[in-house]
Amino acid sequence: MKIWEKGIPVDAKIEQFTIGQDRELDLYLAKFDVLASKAQANMLAGVGILTAEENQQLQQGLTELGEQVEAGTFTIEDEFEDVHSKIESYLTEKFGDAGKKIHTARSRNDQVLTAIQLFLKDYTERAAAKIVQLAEVMLQKAEAHKTDLLPGYTHFQAAMPSSFGLWFSAYAEHLLLDLALFEAAHTVADQNPLGSGAGFGSSFPINRQQTTQELGFGNMAVSSVGAQMLRGKTEKTLAFAVAGCAATLAKMSYDLVLYNSQDLAFVELPAAFTTGSSIMPHKKNPDVFELIRARCNALQALPNTITLTISNLPGGYHRDFQILKELLFEPMTQFLDILDIVLFALPQLCIKPNLLAQDKYDGVFSVENINQLIQTGTPFREAYQQVGRAVNEGTYVPHKEFQTTHLGSVHNLGLEEIEAKLTRVRRGSKVLGRE
Amino acid sequence: MKIWEKGIPVDAKIEQFTIGQDRELDLYLAKFDVLASKAQANMLAGVGILTAEENQQLQQGLTELGEQVEAGTFTIEDEFEDVHSKIESYLTEKFGDAGKKIHTARSRNDQVLTAIQLFLKDYTERAAAKIVQLAEVMLQKAEAHKTDLLPGYTHFQAAMPSSFGLWFSAYAEHLLLDLALFEAAHTVADQNPLGSGAGFGSSFPINRQQTTQELGFGNMAVSSVGAQMLRGKTEKTLAFAVAGCAATLAKMSYDLVLYNSQDLAFVELPAAFTTGSSIMPHKKNPDVFELIRARCNALQALPNTITLTISNLPGGYHRDFQILKELLFEPMTQFLDILDIVLFALPQLCIKPNLLAQDKYDGVFSVENINQLIQTGTPFREAYQQVGRAVNEGTYVPHKEFQTTHLGSVHNLGLEEIEAKLTRVRRGSKVLGRE
Amino acid sequence: MKIWEKGIPVDAKIEQFTIGQDRELDLYLAKFDVLASKAQANMLAGVGILTAEENQQLQQGLTELGEQVEAGTFTIEDEFEDVHSKIESYLTEKFGDAGKKIHTARSRNDQVLTAIQLFLKDYTERAAAKIVQLAEVMLQKAEAHKTDLLPGYTHFQAAMPSSFGLWFSAYAEHLLLDLALFEAAHTVADQNPLGSGAGFGSSFPINRQQTTQELGFGNMAVSSVGAQMLRGKTEKTLAFAVAGCAATLAKMSYDLVLYNSQDLAFVELPAAFTTGSSIMPHKKNPDVFELIRARCNALQALPNTITLTISNLPGGYHRDFQILKELLFEPMTQFLDILDIVLFALPQLCIKPNLLAQDKYDGVFSVENINQLIQTGTPFREAYQQVGRAVNEGTYVPHKEFQTTHLGSVHNLGLEEIEAKLTRVRRGSKVLGRE
Amino acid sequence: MKIWEKGIPVDAKIEQFTIGQDRELDLYLAKFDVLASKAQANMLAGVGILTAEENQQLQQGLTELGEQVEAGTFTIEDEFEDVHSKIESYLTEKFGDAGKKIHTARSRNDQVLTAIQLFLKDYTERAAAKIVQLAEVMLQKAEAHKTDLLPGYTHFQAAMPSSFGLWFSAYAEHLLLDLALFEAAHTVADQNPLGSGAGFGSSFPINRQQTTQELGFGNMAVSSVGAQMLRGKTEKTLAFAVAGCAATLAKMSYDLVLYNSQDLAFVELPAAFTTGSSIMPHKKNPDVFELIRARCNALQALPNTITLTISNLPGGYHRDFQILKELLFEPMTQFLDILDIVLFALPQLCIKPNLLAQDKYDGVFSVENINQLIQTGTPFREAYQQVGRAVNEGTYVPHKEFQTTHLGSVHNLGLEEIEAKLTRVRRGSKVLGRE
Repeated sequence: MKIWEKGIPVDAKIEQFTIGQDRELDLYLAKFDVLASKAQANMLAGVGILTAEENQQLQQGLTELGEQVEAGTFTIEDEFEDVHSKIESYLTEKFGDAGKKIHTARSRNDQVLTAIQLFLKDYTERAAAKIVQLAEVMLQKAEAHKTDLLPGYTHFQAAMPSSFGLWFSAYAEHLLLDLALFEAAHTVADQNPLGSGAGFGSSFPINRQQTTQELGFGNMAVSSVGAQMLRGKTEKTLAFAVAGCAATLAKMSYDLVLYNSQDLAFVELPAAFTTGSSIMPHKKNPDVFELIRARCNALQALPNTITLTISNLPGGYHRDFQILKELLFEPMTQFLDILDIVLFALPQLCIKPNLLAQDKYDGVFSVENINQLIQTGTPFREAYQQVGRAVNEGTYVPHKEFQTTHLGSVHNLGLEEIEAKLTRVRRGSKVLGRE
Repeated sequence: MKIWEKGIPVDAKIEQFTIGQDRELDLYLAKFDVLASKAQANMLAGVGILTAEENQQLQQGLTELGEQVEAGTFTIEDEFEDVHSKIESYLTEKFGDAGKKIHTARSRNDQVLTAIQLFLKDYTERAAAKIVQLAEVMLQKAEAHKTDLLPGYTHFQAAMPSSFGLWFSAYAEHLLLDLALFEAAHTVADQNPLGSGAGFGSSFPINRQQTTQELGFGNMAVSSVGAQMLRGKTEKTLAFAVAGCAATLAKMSYDLVLYNSQDLAFVELPAAFTTGSSIMPHKKNPDVFELIRARCNALQALPNTITLTISNLPGGYHRDFQILKELLFEPMTQFLDILDIVLFALPQLCIKPNLLAQDKYDGVFSVENINQLIQTGTPFREAYQQVGRAVNEGTYVPHKEFQTTHLGSVHNLGLEEIEAKLTRVRRGSKVLGRE
Repeated sequence: MKIWEKGIPVDAKIEQFTIGQDRELDLYLAKFDVLASKAQANMLAGVGILTAEENQQLQQGLTELGEQVEAGTFTIEDEFEDVHSKIESYLTEKFGDAGKKIHTARSRNDQVLTAIQLFLKDYTERAAAKIVQLAEVMLQKAEAHKTDLLPGYTHFQAAMPSSFGLWFSAYAEHLLLDLALFEAAHTVADQNPLGSGAGFGSSFPINRQQTTQELGFGNMAVSSVGAQMLRGKTEKTLAFAVAGCAATLAKMSYDLVLYNSQDLAFVELPAAFTTGSSIMPHKKNPDVFELIRARCNALQALPNTITLTISNLPGGYHRDFQILKELLFEPMTQFLDILDIVLFALPQLCIKPNLLAQDKYDGVFSVENINQLIQTGTPFREAYQQVGRAVNEGTYVPHKEFQTTHLGSVHNLGLEEIEAKLTRVRRGSKVLGRE
Repeated sequence: MKIWEKGIPVDAKIEQFTIGQDRELDLYLAKFDVLASKAQANMLAGVGILTAEENQQLQQGLTELGEQVEAGTFTIEDEFEDVHSKIESYLTEKFGDAGKKIHTARSRNDQVLTAIQLFLKDYTERAAAKIVQLAEVMLQKAEAHKTDLLPGYTHFQAAMPSSFGLWFSAYAEHLLLDLALFEAAHTVADQNPLGSGAGFGSSFPINRQQTTQELGFGNMAVSSVGAQMLRGKTEKTLAFAVAGCAATLAKMSYDLVLYNSQDLAFVELPAAFTTGSSIMPHKKNPDVFELIRARCNALQALPNTITLTISNLPGGYHRDFQILKELLFEPMTQFLDILDIVLFALPQLCIKPNLLAQDKYDGVFSVENINQLIQTGTPFREAYQQVGRAVNEGTYVPHKEFQTTHLGSVHNLGLEEIEAKLTRVRRGSKVLGRE
């Protein structure tokens, strides 16, 4: 069945091309289309378009479908082009006219869009919860490794003493910052388009406040034209959020891949996270973190792919929007998988001790030598030149004892400050609301 | 002067390549480097590194520089590689040792980064204020044109009756949604990196809370390693925000370019907004809106350009970050220009009346014909097929009278609801704080 | 089996993450890994590493596998991580030591890379052949519709008389130009990396010229380090080629979607290529061309996705390259599908007659009015102003009779010239070599 | 003067926005607009639209302008909106009616496009010549450093012995491969659009073969509609070419930045190529190569920026194309600068000797240990396991003597083969034609 069927057979080749992977991808939406259909039916009953009995039937049918989705037994057979056709057909077969009436004052456009808004909003909440969880792991690791020093690099050059405490807490703070984009994506997803029809509303006396409230949307997308314009915008905003956090995870992975090389040798990855070479038995390749990096970089390309697909389309629905499902849904799942892998891998990371004892890192203490001179009254620029001369002439002796006091430095990580930031983020957050 | 000068002449060709456009671009940062230097000096005085007298001198010198910036007389001469060298040189020439001491416990890395954070934070506030202003213009135009109907399109096909009220209010709501990404960019920019030095802090007993407070930052970037990792992240998050709103403006422009064609002829652009053809005297080309569209599309590419420039760099500063200034600052200005042009152009837009009287748009009333049938008891699917048959057989008579009641529809725009959304956005907003 | 197995169990979760979709994607490569393995075995026999008998066994086993691939019965079971493990296991089970020896002087890196080079080279040839075929269809349509005029647009404004002859022949020429990037992709794919091992060669006395010749490569990737650097480069160059032609097809689709609107109504799409609306029975939506446009736009994002995934990786193999298979192979297939759909759809396109008889297009003849004046001696600029005045004052009468003579104009399409270009392209082409 | 002037004052703000940076950017085009105008005038004289005397005047005037361009004295004053207005005004002031007539049978669209085609074609040739020059430098360095070994990396892990000979010759081969995209860009730029007018030709009896020949174009863009569609396509194809080679240079720079770290210490950059730190006197930062990398990565974003700006525009000219000049011309110059810097820097690179004597790289010989075992009859898989066991148990002794024989390996770089490839590339090349 195709709900726009007008009796003209559509060539099978074309049909396959137009349907694409909708049947598989729509499984992501099934739960939310059921919820939205329930709200729609309740509202139609509220305004007298459905009788109480009709609504009761529809609620029952939709509850059954929801249970199938929950149980993993819901399927979209080949005779249906998408989840919406399947659900409507189920209701119509069961309840006849009542089933047909559920589409009153609703178009496929607002129906699909409502399910997508609900799905993406739900996703932002699930992803944000995992990100916070990872930030907390980072803070624990920062505390555990606060005395483990390593050279800090600038320009890929060993520069100054740093610590794994600073490294882990850096990622903790950045994960918290990454939530800001998820907050934005949540805001855009949290707009109810139901009732906007094909993008121009309808003359039915529907009650959009009721569905907004029943579906838990924080806002209504008021203008029907504007509601339709959410298509693509929510997807893109979510892609920005995923890309933002993916950048953080890619950078962390790059660090670890470098730290795992024989040249730096700062960490040891557990055997389970490495693979070998088919010809070189001495290799312990950090494949997992290379793949996290690569997938995170591909995720960073997602906003652009979505933008290119939908840019320079004027207002109003275009079929082009359909392929956003295949561009976005699978990578969204990959991103959650990556968070799971990192949550699983990080606690097992082994940090090597005494890294700064190596001669090749002597130079990283030159700033401390300068500071010593400054404390005895030498102005900065002169101290700088004096130490620089010693380095060049080979007479430099590193001043390895040092003590920092300021917040965010080696000996004062300020982890409680970061915890306090986390608390503030939580307090002002909508996307973390349901944690 | 180059502050890292070690007496080795750097080949002129190389020097020009490495400095790039820093002198011009750093003019954007001058105001903020002055502010941050004042806070730095005050803090150094507070912890006893500067004497009160030294600080007083530095404050005076920096105030002078700030006044030059304000007056537009501040310049960065060719002998300085950037704004920071210029400012330090000014202070040193004037105050000798005191001038040299301002760089204590500060690295070029955190100095540049602090100025950028302050500049970008300020920018998010200025851009957001203009966006809200434009949303308000859209709401006024929606009210003014609420009875001007036009065909609503889906698939580029005239589909249903729509109105300029719905069109303008759609863009009003979308501009409000676009603020969510500016909020996120503001959050990332609102982190104080001052004191993080080259990315690993220092052993000076500095007081980072003091500079955070004096500079008006909402948060401290605590971990020095994490502070340095803001470089590129703030720029990218801002680019997401600009790209998001640019997409809205590009779509609006595309609509207007189409609406201005002879084929649709829904609007008339004032002569001042059009240009002619060198060979076709009948043309009134909508160049301004084409250029807004093109620039907004180029702005949508900005996040990707930034991402590509900084992706796959491990933690720590890399010189690569420097070119973000040339990639970002000019387009940021262009975006404000575009907002100004739209604010200037939109009020002058002429809307053509009675568009739906044309026969070619009869079909847009077919949904109303169906609704009429439904109200007399015909189920939706049957009404749909009945009207469809009439359209195909050429016997269709449009039902042009219609009345909508629901929020966000032709006859109930819900502009007060949108105003209420605007009020809610304002209330929860940090980026709109200083409006 | 994992060929790098060292007896340490890799956590199942990690294993699934690292293998990804390799088993399905490697089916694209099976044919080419069999070919490359045959060449490898022949060469090893040639230099005395394999005995003639061992080689005969391996050739037989590989021929069997090749037949399975051809017949569609080849499978990669769950116990194998990829096609290469499967093939080696098949040979080892069958022939014992001989099977094990085939990996001599070969690493997984050059093995995978060789299969990919062969696959991508083959793909460029298949795609290019279809593109030429489409160009020829365009030329036939240009001839068939050379007298069908339509308004030519600039700035979305009807500007001057054009014809479907010009329109179709434009796309014919652009498809020919699109071959230039396929030629480039073919050049990059036509380099033999076999023998480069893990990227640094080996001390085995192998004969790389022999495998280059047997596999039909036009060139050897001589430096082993450079051979490994082909990974990603060939994929990206092919992505450029696909993106280039996708842009052409997207533009063509955009034209058709517009031409199909009620406002322009220049073409009629056969019913089989349109779909209806779930609520608007008068709609004939051009979904197929919208989806071609959308997919072609997504394909235009592919080079960037690949670039982001592999940029800022230094020389040498990284596991990151593996995910290029999942990024590229499926879209490559989609592109061929799109070419098939267009080849199928275009011949059925209906062109509407007498489009320029409509008053709204009178202005498109203004250039002809000017030219008439010029032929009577009026200088261009004065003629332009005279006609412009008439248009503004409403006294303009279109000069609808016109006759063009130059190549590439309405009445002299120059189709033979374009055919001659096609012949020249063919003559100089490597990617079209096997047509 | 604005050549489309119809007497309506265009608001100054709008005018500034629409003109943008055209005056500066058009200086790139001046030389080519002069050439194309000369060809146009000669052709108009040939078909009798200009008298011989008029043509003589125009040729003289254009020759004068060409000399100004050559001498660097050509300017576009503020009263002209672009180079084309300036040139026409110069001719009209000097020669009256004859000057006005040069625009006969030409539109601004084909005029601009012709100048761009000529400019971009010329650029491909200049860039390609530099790329070949760099490839030759790489080959010389390969020969000079063929005995300098370094560890070859996979997964950022020291893997096997490699050499700077292999490293340099790898980049030589890749630069040659990068020419393939420049060949494609040259093909697209080598199409003459002159005479296609606004995109629909004209009724003047012009001779397009004559201008094609006089301007040295290899082909005519026959269909006037297709000619106009070159706008954006040539730019994008060139951007692909620049991006392709930029990727090669970025990778080379990344290698060098890593090789310059204290941890690897494989190369020493001359002091002139490094800068210091404002707080760390021991640093020698590889800023030049970091900036090359960053700029090359930004260049890799260029194709996407162009694609986004012009995608989803239907056929015909749109003003959007104008901003391609500001997106493309400056980066094109940067790319040539980068090639110059690399040509200047590479010969001065210092390679450190005896790198593989360090214990930490013992593992890179494990493959040689295995090969030794294989030569004594042990099958590969067993040898692999035996050496692997030794590595794990700490009993491994590296087999540092090795000798490779195959083409592209440490001891047989095959530089003559690569020279032969270069000769073959030259022979079949159009873009290298004028070297």
